[in-house]
Amino acid sequence: MSDEHTRRARTVTRADVARYAGVSTAVVSYVLNDGPKPVAPLTRERVLDAVKVLGYRPNAAARALSKGSSDMFGMLVVDSRNPFFAQLCHALGEAAAQDGRTLLIVNTDREHTTAADQIHDLTARQIGGLIIADLLTAAEQALVENLGIPVVLINQYAGAVGVPALGADFRDGARRAVEHLVGHGYRSIAFIGSASIFDDRERGWGDALTAAGLPLGARIHAPFSYEGGYQAGIELADAAERPRAAFAASDQVAVGLLAALHARGLRVPEDVAVVSFDGTDAAEYACPPLTTTAQPMAEMAREAIRLLQAGDAEPGYRAFPTALVVRRSCGCE
Amino acid sequence: MSDEHTRRARTVTRADVARYAGVSTAVVSYVLNDGPKPVAPLTRERVLDAVKVLGYRPNAAARALSKGSSDMFGMLVVDSRNPFFAQLCHALGEAAAQDGRTLLIVNTDREHTTAADQIHDLTARQIGGLIIADLLTAAEQALVENLGIPVVLINQYAGAVGVPALGADFRDGARRAVEHLVGHGYRSIAFIGSASIFDDRERGWGDALTAAGLPLGARIHAPFSYEGGYQAGIELADAAERPRAAFAASDQVAVGLLAALHARGLRVPEDVAVVSFDGTDAAEYACPPLTTTAQPMAEMAREAIRLLQAGDAEPGYRAFPTALVVRRSCGCE
Repeated sequence: MSDEHTRRARTVTRADVARYAGVSTAVVSYVLNDGPKPVAPLTRERVLDAVKVLGYRPNAAARALSKGSSDMFGMLVVDSRNPFFAQLCHALGEAAAQDGRTLLIVNTDREHTTAADQIHDLTARQIGGLIIADLLTAAEQALVENLGIPVVLINQYAGAVGVPALGADFRDGARRAVEHLVGHGYRSIAFIGSASIFDDRERGWGDALTAAGLPLGARIHAPFSYEGGYQAGIELADAAERPRAAFAASDQVAVGLLAALHARGLRVPEDVAVVSFDGTDAAEYACPPLTTTAQPMAEMAREAIRLLQAGDAEPGYRAFPTALVVRRSCGCE
Repeated sequence: MSDEHTRRARTVTRADVARYAGVSTAVVSYVLNDGPKPVAPLTRERVLDAVKVLGYRPNAAARALSKGSSDMFGMLVVDSRNPFFAQLCHALGEAAAQDGRTLLIVNTDREHTTAADQIHDLTARQIGGLIIADLLTAAEQALVENLGIPVVLINQYAGAVGVPALGADFRDGARRAVEHLVGHGYRSIAFIGSASIFDDRERGWGDALTAAGLPLGARIHAPFSYEGGYQAGIELADAAERPRAAFAASDQVAVGLLAALHARGLRVPEDVAVVSFDGTDAAEYACPPLTTTAQPMAEMAREAIRLLQAGDAEPGYRAFPTALVVRRSCGCE
């Protein structure tokens, strides 16, 4: 912001711009919004010149303050480089746009700042609601319960006190993925993913093995990243008794796993069969294409936006059923 | 926002909360910011209760309006599902955090709204600067020149009037990638990517072939997506005279291309060698691992943030040199 602007006694309005440019305020709006009506090039130039000279800055924050709400939703996400979160954010953006809202996405960054600070930063922008795709500490949960705007937790495997939460049915989805591997006749099926205190997928893996009368196979806890999947894959490939199949708790982990198995000269599915979880595009274009448990991203996104719009949604948890997408990594043709 | 809140005559302040809870305003702040000092559980409960009863909502938008600036930067990105944009956004978030700023990311959505509207929406949040990773129309360029806050265009291959712009040296990077393929002895090298009116990578491909005295090979214009790369790969695999190698203009396109070549039973690099562009994690974990032209994402991110912080950066364009990362898809061991 220029010094000239901060020295100014009162805020420059669209009417000032119109007066200076000798046009109507509607024409100023057409120029700045790129429509809906066309504006002659010379008139446009005059308006833009006036905007520059007067230092005009359309200010919806002022409007939002007077209205007490706004047309934006905030989104706090753990790491949008993960293909699943990237697609979930996109689905939420689409769902928000259907309702005439824009989504402001902030990557959770617990190194340089606290999640509480980021939540405050976002709500202070006069957003109309907040979606959080991250596991919160107890203090953070207490904070979001008292924000004064609707909050929805997404990608959760359990409910939270005070705010609505939703997520895919992780346990059931994992169980069905592993059942599919059992159906192929594999007897030793490893788990690769995060520990069960953070996540319900390991329990689902155990459910399927127990139901089939099989012993629990190897369990490799890995961070949700390509590198996490890769390191787990090396461990699996080099194991004295190599498992015949593996369930990977995310598509990103599975892509890392495939890279490690290839690096060790193992074939998928002939030597090690793989099923993963998420249903992202990355799974479809993996080598071989991954059989994966698809999360209903568009449906969960629409529900999250609906809950924010409703404003007074009851706290509670809703699990969304998943669907197994069968491709080649499991051994199917 | 509750009806109770909108009926309220004046805004509830932190002092009101402190009075109601019988604590100091500092304690209210510690509870809501999760620190820096600890608060006894019962006191915390009293404060949160007061926040709820009074409908208190910490309002930095009001502060931002009175200060005329804020601690957030906005980011408009064409599609953060593309692994390159996801990593670029993350690098920008890191660079912003180093400076104590938070990055608000908005996906460009030209279906439901105009880019101009989204730019207005973002700037109206009293952000301190705006980064745009998208190609702008002339009207949009005129708009961003007159926003009254620092704007930087990123992922550009040429300069813009009025605002600083930067990007990887697309043409030089593509030229060196194709030179590497020429060095392997391949004589027919295809281009897969967007048309040269949007992008300089096709020109770099042509530069390398011309310099080597080779004819221009097949040129397949494809959207920047997995599916775009896949369709181009099918076209390439089924061509009467199949090229011996291909340069893919992005890692995402290359991953789609690999999937298509595998689907057609072709081996990479034995049947078709591939080099791509971006240097994302997705390239490292592809099958085979992709030789790719790495964009200096962290460096470009730091420069973009520096330009926003400086505030009065001169308009102009800066190209960042790329680095070829050699893996196996090109035919190297």
